[in-house]
Amino acid sequence: MPPAISFTLTATDPDTRARAGVLTTPHGAVQTPVFMPVGTQGSVKAVHPQAMHGLGAQIVLGNAYHLYLRPGHQLIHRMGGLARWTTWDGPMLTDSGGFQVFSLAHTRKINDDGVRFRSHLDGSDHMLTPELTMEIEQALGADIAMVLDQPSAFPATRASTEEALGRTHRWAERCRRAHTRPDQALFPIVQGGFEADLRQESARMLVDMDFPGYAIGGLSVGEPKDVMWQMLQVTTSYLPAEKSRYLMGVGSPEDLLAGIALGVDMFDCSFPTRIARNGALLTPSGRVNIRNAQFKTAETPVLAGCDCDTCTRFTAAYVHHLFMAHELLAYQLASVHNLRFMVRLAQDARTAIIDGRFAAFRAGFDAGFRPADGAVQAAQKAKWLEARQRKGVRS
Amino acid sequence: MPPAISFTLTATDPDTRARAGVLTTPHGAVQTPVFMPVGTQGSVKAVHPQAMHGLGAQIVLGNAYHLYLRPGHQLIHRMGGLARWTTWDGPMLTDSGGFQVFSLAHTRKINDDGVRFRSHLDGSDHMLTPELTMEIEQALGADIAMVLDQPSAFPATRASTEEALGRTHRWAERCRRAHTRPDQALFPIVQGGFEADLRQESARMLVDMDFPGYAIGGLSVGEPKDVMWQMLQVTTSYLPAEKSRYLMGVGSPEDLLAGIALGVDMFDCSFPTRIARNGALLTPSGRVNIRNAQFKTAETPVLAGCDCDTCTRFTAAYVHHLFMAHELLAYQLASVHNLRFMVRLAQDARTAIIDGRFAAFRAGFDAGFRPADGAVQAAQKAKWLEARQRKGVRS
Repeated sequence: MPPAISFTLTATDPDTRARAGVLTTPHGAVQTPVFMPVGTQGSVKAVHPQAMHGLGAQIVLGNAYHLYLRPGHQLIHRMGGLARWTTWDGPMLTDSGGFQVFSLAHTRKINDDGVRFRSHLDGSDHMLTPELTMEIEQALGADIAMVLDQPSAFPATRASTEEALGRTHRWAERCRRAHTRPDQALFPIVQGGFEADLRQESARMLVDMDFPGYAIGGLSVGEPKDVMWQMLQVTTSYLPAEKSRYLMGVGSPEDLLAGIALGVDMFDCSFPTRIARNGALLTPSGRVNIRNAQFKTAETPVLAGCDCDTCTRFTAAYVHHLFMAHELLAYQLASVHNLRFMVRLAQDARTAIIDGRFAAFRAGFDAGFRPADGAVQAAQKAKWLEARQRKGVRS
Repeated sequence: MPPAISFTLTATDPDTRARAGVLTTPHGAVQTPVFMPVGTQGSVKAVHPQAMHGLGAQIVLGNAYHLYLRPGHQLIHRMGGLARWTTWDGPMLTDSGGFQVFSLAHTRKINDDGVRFRSHLDGSDHMLTPELTMEIEQALGADIAMVLDQPSAFPATRASTEEALGRTHRWAERCRRAHTRPDQALFPIVQGGFEADLRQESARMLVDMDFPGYAIGGLSVGEPKDVMWQMLQVTTSYLPAEKSRYLMGVGSPEDLLAGIALGVDMFDCSFPTRIARNGALLTPSGRVNIRNAQFKTAETPVLAGCDCDTCTRFTAAYVHHLFMAHELLAYQLASVHNLRFMVRLAQDARTAIIDGRFAAFRAGFDAGFRPADGAVQAAQKAKWLEARQRKGVRS
């Protein structure tokens, strides 16, 4: 039986580890590097599936934890699977929910068998095991499924990181045994916290198991940026060149380019849609707050020259007004712009890699882009995590 | 100079007063009877302007009161007018804000000069006069503008209704004098509360002033339905057949057909989008609450055979899930369905009129349609009015 997916390297950058490739899935080809929009609960927040094609999205995520709890994976299976149910007719990937069960759910107990938790929605009791995770993800039927893992927090003791890593590896093996769907690929998740040797061990062990692609998890959880890049560099060094690499939950424009430079092919993050709903719009200079008075009379688009549907149709003044007037259309227009910005940035990086000028492309972008202040970013993320737990809603 | 708009009767129904016609405006022709979606603050709530074309909308409303307060009519004028600013490239109509200033604003003083009020947004003090209303609506630049009027409440004393009516007529004359824009038509508003002779007097007086079309205001404000239809019948009897007639703020599917039967050509109401955001979806049998458990596993569309974008793409189960999961896409999909339902109902009524079978069409619809219970409807409207005043947001 041929594997569900295959990965072909198109070009490698002469100056960095950046690579351009093509990931072939049962639902179509994905040009990498790629930014994958997040549709946690079966919808990329505020964006119509038709608009996803318009903004150039190639592959969309769903989340097994959320969809298991609501509406239930058997229901989605009966509806023809996640892609058909959501009417997204392109490639999809489902996250296992490992991150969610450790960050969102309550009163958990973890042992080698699995994780016992109470639903953030209704307090109901559940036990997530590698086998159940595979049942859920196979029922959802995305082109790529993720194993159940146990991420470590930052900071964490070496002992607890080692314990979580051992479990992550045992669970990866159990997931592989339980996974039987031939039209779906299964990716393991390299963990190892912030210990370089554990990251290396994790990469080697999972590569020995021979999966069709590899994810890097447990990063961008509050650690300093230089620590994150160091861990990523160690990890990608031990991943095979001929398999695709997915950095989970990353990220911002500058982090996307940094990850590409270290050899990552796939990225996902709810960041662009989350900040969009708050009125923060991405530009090559950094985020702008569309509520600012400067936009009240701006007859130009939010971003001059941007090819997104929002910028080609509407003035910044109109988008400003929609936010000030609490109009629902505001969230639609802002989300489309930010998603297009991230999708296009990955596309442009790909072209630069093929042209052998990625390092210059990245330097040019970073020279113009002012990242959100780290403290502001951390405070926003903490606020969001708290609100998410309070409301039982996740973006 | 040719008038900005013209109206041609295409057919009249043999059994009722229903008529089919074509209203020609500077931005295109409108087939009547027509349901006009409401974009109070420059956006039909949750619906992208592109989707408005898809659902067959012919003409869209804006509200002078709201747009004067935020973002300001001069700003919209500098942006090329309301149609260009909102990127709706079809015909538009602006309501003067007479209804809003009497229902939404605070601490008002009314005399012949105008209405003094405090903004529901920031408490700022304003004086709305017929002349300022014309300045605002001419700046917005819709194809059709409405005069400033003073509606009566239900119930109201005869003396107060007479006083408001006299003022409405004097203001209509002042609006006509102040209105100079040649590419915009001005409609007066027949008032007279719930006194048949005052309604008759109002219609006659305004017809004598010779406007290009006539609106009927002050109905559907809490009076019994039979009183409303009696008032409408009296009014339309005195309106000229060769001019278009617009029943303001109406309404529900059954009221749309009742209004058409009494000779009305144009309708608007925020009802379809307002109830959509609450999960109430229109079907030929009545409203259904998409949150109901029966839809959880429904593989059929919300309404089988419906040609709206939502029903042709998505299952009822998916729309149900979006509402249960508080996904913003829910409001988009539900609003598109309800608007398409109303727009199509008016279109179907038009076809029936042309075919000389409107009475049977209406009887068939009414036989199947179960209107929302009057008490439920009134309670919902009261709740909405209260929330609207509290939040300073209007749908």
